[in-house]
Amino acid sequence: MAVDRSETRWNGWGWTEQLDELSHNDRVWEWIARELNMGALLATPAVPLEEVELPAPRLAPDTLNALAEVVGEAWVKVSRQERASHARGKSYHDLLYLRAGNLADTTPDAVVYPGNPLETLELIQRCAERNIAVVPTGGGSSVVGGVNASPGESHDGVIVLNTTRMSRVLTIDEEALTAVVEAGVYGPDLEEQLAEKGFTLGHYPQSFQFSTLGGWIAARGAGQQSNKYGKAESWLVCAKLATPKGFWTTECFPASAAGPDLNDLVLGSEGTIGVITEATVKIQRIPEAKDYRGYLFGDFASGVAAAREIIQARLPVAMVRLSDENETHFFRAFSDAQKPNSFLRRIKKTLESWYLKSKGVSQRPCLMIVGIEGRKANVVGVSKVAGAIAKKHKALAIGPSAGKRWFEGRFHGPYARDPMLDHGLGADTLETSTRWSNILHLQEAMIPAIEGAIREGLPNQGARGIVMGHISHTYTDGASLYYTFVFPRDLEHDVRQWRAIKKAATESIVEHGGTISHHHGVGTDHADWMVEEKGPIGLGILKAVKDELDEAGIMNPGKLLP
Amino acid sequence: MAVDRSETRWNGWGWTEQLDELSHNDRVWEWIARELNMGALLATPAVPLEEVELPAPRLAPDTLNALAEVVGEAWVKVSRQERASHARGKSYHDLLYLRAGNLADTTPDAVVYPGNPLETLELIQRCAERNIAVVPTGGGSSVVGGVNASPGESHDGVIVLNTTRMSRVLTIDEEALTAVVEAGVYGPDLEEQLAEKGFTLGHYPQSFQFSTLGGWIAARGAGQQSNKYGKAESWLVCAKLATPKGFWTTECFPASAAGPDLNDLVLGSEGTIGVITEATVKIQRIPEAKDYRGYLFGDFASGVAAAREIIQARLPVAMVRLSDENETHFFRAFSDAQKPNSFLRRIKKTLESWYLKSKGVSQRPCLMIVGIEGRKANVVGVSKVAGAIAKKHKALAIGPSAGKRWFEGRFHGPYARDPMLDHGLGADTLETSTRWSNILHLQEAMIPAIEGAIREGLPNQGARGIVMGHISHTYTDGASLYYTFVFPRDLEHDVRQWRAIKKAATESIVEHGGTISHHHGVGTDHADWMVEEKGPIGLGILKAVKDELDEAGIMNPGKLLP
Repeated sequence: MAVDRSETRWNGWGWTEQLDELSHNDRVWEWIARELNMGALLATPAVPLEEVELPAPRLAPDTLNALAEVVGEAWVKVSRQERASHARGKSYHDLLYLRAGNLADTTPDAVVYPGNPLETLELIQRCAERNIAVVPTGGGSSVVGGVNASPGESHDGVIVLNTTRMSRVLTIDEEALTAVVEAGVYGPDLEEQLAEKGFTLGHYPQSFQFSTLGGWIAARGAGQQSNKYGKAESWLVCAKLATPKGFWTTECFPASAAGPDLNDLVLGSEGTIGVITEATVKIQRIPEAKDYRGYLFGDFASGVAAAREIIQARLPVAMVRLSDENETHFFRAFSDAQKPNSFLRRIKKTLESWYLKSKGVSQRPCLMIVGIEGRKANVVGVSKVAGAIAKKHKALAIGPSAGKRWFEGRFHGPYARDPMLDHGLGADTLETSTRWSNILHLQEAMIPAIEGAIREGLPNQGARGIVMGHISHTYTDGASLYYTFVFPRDLEHDVRQWRAIKKAATESIVEHGGTISHHHGVGTDHADWMVEEKGPIGLGILKAVKDELDEAGIMNPGKLLP
Repeated sequence: MAVDRSETRWNGWGWTEQLDELSHNDRVWEWIARELNMGALLATPAVPLEEVELPAPRLAPDTLNALAEVVGEAWVKVSRQERASHARGKSYHDLLYLRAGNLADTTPDAVVYPGNPLETLELIQRCAERNIAVVPTGGGSSVVGGVNASPGESHDGVIVLNTTRMSRVLTIDEEALTAVVEAGVYGPDLEEQLAEKGFTLGHYPQSFQFSTLGGWIAARGAGQQSNKYGKAESWLVCAKLATPKGFWTTECFPASAAGPDLNDLVLGSEGTIGVITEATVKIQRIPEAKDYRGYLFGDFASGVAAAREIIQARLPVAMVRLSDENETHFFRAFSDAQKPNSFLRRIKKTLESWYLKSKGVSQRPCLMIVGIEGRKANVVGVSKVAGAIAKKHKALAIGPSAGKRWFEGRFHGPYARDPMLDHGLGADTLETSTRWSNILHLQEAMIPAIEGAIREGLPNQGARGIVMGHISHTYTDGASLYYTFVFPRDLEHDVRQWRAIKKAATESIVEHGGTISHHHGVGTDHADWMVEEKGPIGLGILKAVKDELDEAGIMNPGKLLP
């Protein structure tokens, strides 16, 4: 089942009907205001769509007809709702523009929905003939500007090519444990179709409900349980793309030595060389059991050591997620703030604090959630070994309730951002990865870098930001670090404020040995750092590949490459 | 410790001193003659180096001086021994030319040994200025023509750039379990250096003793224990290359979403875009225990089903190797043929045959060797589970002796080829991979395709070839198939004979859904099928990448790309 974009927020996250539970919880807002040292929060509502002025469409009627000839008139959409909700992705930066009603530079002239690969190819070719930029999109949940509908300077218009009509699981190979799937399928729809036969892809990013298979591949995404199910580059077997040069079906083997594996050029291509229309992916049997449980570590370093030991012992876990001191503290305090501060709750907290102390765990502990999925007997065994390793690093096992809470709320994070924006607050996330021997070094650099940039850009003296981090994905040689930060908006210069924070954070990442993105992608927001990431020769290669497939330069201009 | 090429066969495999134990075992030759239905074997010795006419070197003295300025005079080698032993790799096809003394088209004008990356870069640049082709080599063990020293038609000469002076492990990161290693290091030297600190790369291809790290990466190699240690694309973290455009250091992170992973363009590049001078690789602790044991299956299909179940259960094995009926039969018969056929041995064989029958295993069983490496307790546990799966598929467990025999002889295979060539016999191998659901289909097509092509090319009526296969590497979605075949040489037209067999086999692979190579690479021998493997768009991309880095087209001309 496809998502109907008229039922989702055009300028925010998720279903329009689904209000964030915090929206009307005054206790939370009071707590946040206190934490940010702000006197009071502001009311900063978004401009409603009715009041937004969209740029005049640039496509001549005969061009619209040419596109309609391919997909049918009903699938060339030019309504305000369609154009506005395909203008940008879902980054904090995007929301600033959308909520301000500033759609001048990023509004598609039309949104076109091909129903199959051939229509996709024909659309691209007709756009190439007419010098119209094509921005491919699936769920449109990019948080790095990857789907912003900006034509290049030289184009005569821009369409968004929405792939979500192509959403079927075509075949399942039960012997090879692979499935051929149309790339426009949303996460829940994909999992539902696979589940009918007892299978799962197991790719559950936070955006799961509003992102598609093609987007996960195009942006080299990672699901939260990537230890078991793999990042996109692990589960992709091969893909079919519609490119300006024609159809390209990549090599499709378990492994090969027939030269470079070109699937790795599709992964991370972000729509700049073509549109992924189908993919063959590795699937697994739906696990019989899941076990998610929590451990509290005395400090981040002990948690890192335990995470590393679990992964390097090749323990078949699905996820190891380690919050730093700040995240553990704030998530706990945030959760507390949602409930009345009764006498009983205060007693409970005091007892907890004593308990932690008696166990030798600090008062600023770090929470690790270990997730294990598989056969019941294996899950129990693996959980025991993971627990023993945690214990060795002096962790306190706090059982499955913390795991359950995390699991239940695992797609919820982005919903909290909209009410924050309504209250004069900014909230953003960014992420990186580095080798184990550099994790603490990078973490120690990142927190002050983000905090400092927030401080410098604060509109009012005395206020402050909250910065917290966690390890979200682990590998034998390293791990990813993920940061969330909340800060008072500078309402006069909120884009500039965000840009300064982003710049400071990314420069700190590059300076301290991290990648500019572990799973969000490049889009527009990281493109300026691509030369540092890939080197001039690497960047030259990417440009050569782009030129080879997209001579006219119509595919997702301005993304990925600086 | 580097290999001194003057101590290895210039026109055959391995140490000159190490005679294949079969060379003088008449019983074996009689058995082979019988199996091939040949009256008697011929004596077909190779032309000795002294009698070979090498083409006159084309490099002018000032060019040789320019190269010597970079590396020192001692490292620009032009002796007959050096030039001849760097003329070609070690394919059957190569040996036909070398043994015939036909070095006309593939002799380097000089062999140059840079001592470090900077010298490597300068050599490449000086060759580019002078229009001299550069053929990078490590151990030179390519079996697909990947290191043949043929200049392109338009070049004014050709050098082989031998990387093996660059052989140090530079750093070991014990936290990240990675090592930075110079790429010219031979297998045994690398493992020795890592072992000093308790680590291993675990990459043991059959060519291990005579191949280098850089070659494994450049050809996307696979070690025999790739289930535990990974194919090159799994253990490579990043690389440094000297290219005609300058140094290129690829991105070096545990995982990234910063666009396509360009390490995958280095893997399989076969020296066509630059010379790999250093690599960061994932290492592991030396395993505490190893367990290699055998199982006999009633037929190939049962063995395939068991192998698939072991892998898809994600059992942490190091290797699952399944011989087909022919290979199991011939290896056994071959081994028998080496020893006197005493009364006791005949009794033993009869008893074995009865035993197999009583256990319900056919008289043409298939041998599986399962290798497990790791902590002692885990090895025992995993071995039990693997054994239970084998039993479920009606295998007979035959214990560790079969595993031990395989393990001890695991690098020996190539030595047997030279004495065969001396006896008028041809012997070659080739390999592919495909998804599990296609393994039996492909296997059923391959055996008759190779047998048929051998039959058609036979010099004498009535004789026949031996064709046998095994599964050598396994993945959740499929496996590789590896074929060995022995046949009477057509002494008049032995290259043409080989080419016909190769063509038939490769066409059968392509037609029946396999890759043209799982781990041997492309070189010259598979280049003609690259358009079928990658598609015209994929091939266009590879050419664009090559043109971007090697504008002058001096790097390993004629390899990889048709």
